[in-house]
Amino acid sequence: MAAAIDPAAIKVILGEIAEETLALRRVGKVASYIPELAGVDPEGFAVSVAFLDGRTAEVGAVGETFSIQSISKVFNLTLALGKIGDVLWRRVGREPSGNAFNSIVQLEQEQGIPRNPFINAGAIVVSDVLLAGHEPKETIAETVTFLRFLAGDESIVVDKAVAQSEKATGNRNFALAYFLKAHGNLVETPDRVLGVYFHQCAIAMSCRQLARACLFLAADGRDPVGGRRIVSAQRARRINALMMTSGMYDASGDFAYRIGLPAKSGVGGGIVAVVPGVGTVAVWSPGLDATGNSLVGSLVLEKLVQRTGWTVFGGR
Amino acid sequence: MAAAIDPAAIKVILGEIAEETLALRRVGKVASYIPELAGVDPEGFAVSVAFLDGRTAEVGAVGETFSIQSISKVFNLTLALGKIGDVLWRRVGREPSGNAFNSIVQLEQEQGIPRNPFINAGAIVVSDVLLAGHEPKETIAETVTFLRFLAGDESIVVDKAVAQSEKATGNRNFALAYFLKAHGNLVETPDRVLGVYFHQCAIAMSCRQLARACLFLAADGRDPVGGRRIVSAQRARRINALMMTSGMYDASGDFAYRIGLPAKSGVGGGIVAVVPGVGTVAVWSPGLDATGNSLVGSLVLEKLVQRTGWTVFGGR
Amino acid sequence: MAAAIDPAAIKVILGEIAEETLALRRVGKVASYIPELAGVDPEGFAVSVAFLDGRTAEVGAVGETFSIQSISKVFNLTLALGKIGDVLWRRVGREPSGNAFNSIVQLEQEQGIPRNPFINAGAIVVSDVLLAGHEPKETIAETVTFLRFLAGDESIVVDKAVAQSEKATGNRNFALAYFLKAHGNLVETPDRVLGVYFHQCAIAMSCRQLARACLFLAADGRDPVGGRRIVSAQRARRINALMMTSGMYDASGDFAYRIGLPAKSGVGGGIVAVVPGVGTVAVWSPGLDATGNSLVGSLVLEKLVQRTGWTVFGGR
Amino acid sequence: MAAAIDPAAIKVILGEIAEETLALRRVGKVASYIPELAGVDPEGFAVSVAFLDGRTAEVGAVGETFSIQSISKVFNLTLALGKIGDVLWRRVGREPSGNAFNSIVQLEQEQGIPRNPFINAGAIVVSDVLLAGHEPKETIAETVTFLRFLAGDESIVVDKAVAQSEKATGNRNFALAYFLKAHGNLVETPDRVLGVYFHQCAIAMSCRQLARACLFLAADGRDPVGGRRIVSAQRARRINALMMTSGMYDASGDFAYRIGLPAKSGVGGGIVAVVPGVGTVAVWSPGLDATGNSLVGSLVLEKLVQRTGWTVFGGR
Repeated sequence: MAAAIDPAAIKVILGEIAEETLALRRVGKVASYIPELAGVDPEGFAVSVAFLDGRTAEVGAVGETFSIQSISKVFNLTLALGKIGDVLWRRVGREPSGNAFNSIVQLEQEQGIPRNPFINAGAIVVSDVLLAGHEPKETIAETVTFLRFLAGDESIVVDKAVAQSEKATGNRNFALAYFLKAHGNLVETPDRVLGVYFHQCAIAMSCRQLARACLFLAADGRDPVGGRRIVSAQRARRINALMMTSGMYDASGDFAYRIGLPAKSGVGGGIVAVVPGVGTVAVWSPGLDATGNSLVGSLVLEKLVQRTGWTVFGGR
Repeated sequence: MAAAIDPAAIKVILGEIAEETLALRRVGKVASYIPELAGVDPEGFAVSVAFLDGRTAEVGAVGETFSIQSISKVFNLTLALGKIGDVLWRRVGREPSGNAFNSIVQLEQEQGIPRNPFINAGAIVVSDVLLAGHEPKETIAETVTFLRFLAGDESIVVDKAVAQSEKATGNRNFALAYFLKAHGNLVETPDRVLGVYFHQCAIAMSCRQLARACLFLAADGRDPVGGRRIVSAQRARRINALMMTSGMYDASGDFAYRIGLPAKSGVGGGIVAVVPGVGTVAVWSPGLDATGNSLVGSLVLEKLVQRTGWTVFGGR
Repeated sequence: MAAAIDPAAIKVILGEIAEETLALRRVGKVASYIPELAGVDPEGFAVSVAFLDGRTAEVGAVGETFSIQSISKVFNLTLALGKIGDVLWRRVGREPSGNAFNSIVQLEQEQGIPRNPFINAGAIVVSDVLLAGHEPKETIAETVTFLRFLAGDESIVVDKAVAQSEKATGNRNFALAYFLKAHGNLVETPDRVLGVYFHQCAIAMSCRQLARACLFLAADGRDPVGGRRIVSAQRARRINALMMTSGMYDASGDFAYRIGLPAKSGVGGGIVAVVPGVGTVAVWSPGLDATGNSLVGSLVLEKLVQRTGWTVFGGR
Repeated sequence: MAAAIDPAAIKVILGEIAEETLALRRVGKVASYIPELAGVDPEGFAVSVAFLDGRTAEVGAVGETFSIQSISKVFNLTLALGKIGDVLWRRVGREPSGNAFNSIVQLEQEQGIPRNPFINAGAIVVSDVLLAGHEPKETIAETVTFLRFLAGDESIVVDKAVAQSEKATGNRNFALAYFLKAHGNLVETPDRVLGVYFHQCAIAMSCRQLARACLFLAADGRDPVGGRRIVSAQRARRINALMMTSGMYDASGDFAYRIGLPAKSGVGGGIVAVVPGVGTVAVWSPGLDATGNSLVGSLVLEKLVQRTGWTVFGGR
């Protein structure tokens, strides 16, 4: 998959794709369950490619921040695996859910063990692991600090208004948390865990920051620019595997089919995709498709992969 | 992922792994729902790696045939896509099922559209597509002929005794087929379609034949040895994607996590894995784990990937 | 609940109710899955009350026959209990299903034991019990003979065209039967059992015949007119109990709430209700509500109970 | 069902039945999810029959109080129907659930409308209706006051320790409440509603008090002793119907089959059954069967009905 990369050529491709998908930005539906998301401009758009050598190819508002939402689950998972390792898998599964991301049905059938760390119930367990006796503030700060470190950007913060609104409308997540608690799969109280969880989802980042922050996943766990090891090669690959099978809600299979890259999306309209050995792609377009993934974002990635051959499933 | 490949070195690794997993061959349970499978020697073992350049690395009874069972679903899917293309996806989904491979529950919830072509219901629809007005015999012959062509081996045949037993004990598959019919997702009669389906599952092949037959999936759709194009590059990659997200029954997520390669298993104890750009691996060990996949087969692949770095999720 | 009964007064009430519900006959939807049912006149209407002393109160086309469909399940259950007694309950449950009458989901969750003998899967098991090594023709004849005996009317027959159509469109029932077979809860082949089942559903009877045939259920198991014991008092009461909790598909709770009588409906538009100690009511109106029960039929029973106090839940 | 009642003869029967079931008191399992219930003497036993004319037949510790738990749902439903009438049915169904009493699965499938007012989710909605802007204390007092009035006994109180423990272990009920809230089927906060709900479940009553308090249900809504109308005849009958189809958790069908009376049980080991036109029976024995109903309590009722013919399904 290596081949010589030419950021300038990629930037041209990105520009063409941005043009081609322009008319579709208003087709998807902006998430509307909280006013802070509902008010986002549906025309907002950015795509940022970060290469292993530190170069980038960018188009659109790549410095504009948006709510990363479920994309935060990748970083929290990384932290939780760092904290307790494979013991995590006693409390969360690794299988695609075959159900909506916030379904409680499967949770009952499977006795309180969420199917994977990227559905809400699984991510709540991950937040519980990170909280583990600390103060919620500290735990939230831990994730933010990790992201600042990965992105090399101290400006990353939680959008407090989003966090507040998430909590005010988060009844289904409270239901999930109490259900986990009832099954003995939550150590802390639902209130404390969700306090952490909602803040993690409310972190605001730009495409530039996101692409940069995920680069270690494209480089076997080492930050290819800074040179520091973030996680082991095996762990990086495994996180990629989880993103591939479960990262795009209940459209993960379809995304693997169309795009063929490990990726994670959020209802804020962001998607991060990993191209092992090449780099990362972060795309943002707030309009969502029926599965809750950015409609234009998915399409941009599909077109980019078609023109670059950046799928992990190719033989070249 | 390229790097210089040394078949001799791989053969040494395979030998070591065979040794290390020897004691586990009797831990898994041989499929027992039909006498023909129940009678298979649990000690049977083979692993065959086929490289793009035609060389191989093999250990064990690589010429001994076994019932390929669900592995046939990969080849039938390839044929069906060749026949009707993406129209197939109106009748079958592309999402992991999150349920047992023969579950009828999800089928009811999703109105007769099977979640993917690798669960039984989906594969039955695929067989219906292949049958489409032909005689069952012709359709069975089509799959066998395709496999002989891919493997370059005219000796591949259906094990009639297995096919007969499958039919005699196939009540759940009949239930699935009638259910599909009730939802209008079966053109032919359940009897005719299952006649085809059971024979396809009953094809007997060796690890050597299987690894060879799948080589086009590791080479962007072109047979790298014979040089003929089997499917387009995009289609090959997409079949790999489906194998990654849904190929290992309800353990596909776990398999992606541990091994990180597109793969398809069968209850006969076989597994085929694709290493894009490198080659294919076919392994056989009849003892199954709780998810219906070869216990030793999965372990062999895991160890092989750890020592070779052959996961698609790595950055090197 | 006894009180002095005046058939003439009841007939006046029935006439009023028929008048009041006249306009609603075209609101419900006539079953349309087979042409024989789809072609029935939606204006068809009859209601027949049979009292323990042999007198009747009737309005409408009480001699006109219609397809009794699921109402046959009451008679088959009676025969099966006579044949094998409480052993039946090892193969069928006694709980309301909380699901559509032909759901296959619950059957999977409960390992092939249908929830009750009035959902399709349960009735198919009952037919299997009745078949038990006999010829389908004999078994069908057994049910018809039983009905002729109960109704005192030798003219009752199976509508062969309906039976034929049921089979031709019965894919979902075949799915249920094969599923039962897969779980070991069917002794005979699905083909033979459904041959019996479809014929039993296709029996044609009039309201007059139906009300008469059920009289033993209102009289503790003894035919109050002929004087012969049909079943024990306990068994009659228990069949009534099953009708109360599961007789009206997934609207049984609502029916108990509104009407408060044991009853069984069929998609042919018939309903039979039992008033213990008083008599029986058979009503027919082909238009069905969303739950598959006769819309006008249910309403007629509700109005009749309101004016007569014939609920089993009353204190007078 | 009238016939001349002889309380003395009934008392003899009750004594015999108590004797016959003595050995089974330790077979059932006392509810153990809170220490206050776990500590109850499994040998505790009482049965009290209240007749319409005010006489009684009693055996055992009929004055000893126990936690009525889900039996409170009958009284709360009565109050809620008095408050908002049939509007209640827009928020709660009337169908048996076909699932465990505290299942969250069905709630998701049915979009936040609990199947009936006797499963936990439905009872939580009923508590929400009763709370409706009042103080939890007032609402709890309302139920207690109603029970004191019905039973003619001012000593009835909430067991505060039980209420406290219920809350401390009530995670699943919190999950249900938040889930209802997420679906817009809860007006008040889960915390306030469950504060009420847990106290209502923690009311302590004796068999004597319970039998007396339910007498209006056996007498078409009028207190047959005090002479005051509690609810309309229709409403009393309808509450009986709901108890028949849904009062005994997921064993309601079996209970109707075996006993044939409207009844409501609680995990404290109490059961109240209604014999329309005759009276009521309250029985208490803490050991529960697998369905959560008093094992000996159910058996006592079955034997009593067999010897008295007090089923609603009988013709005499």
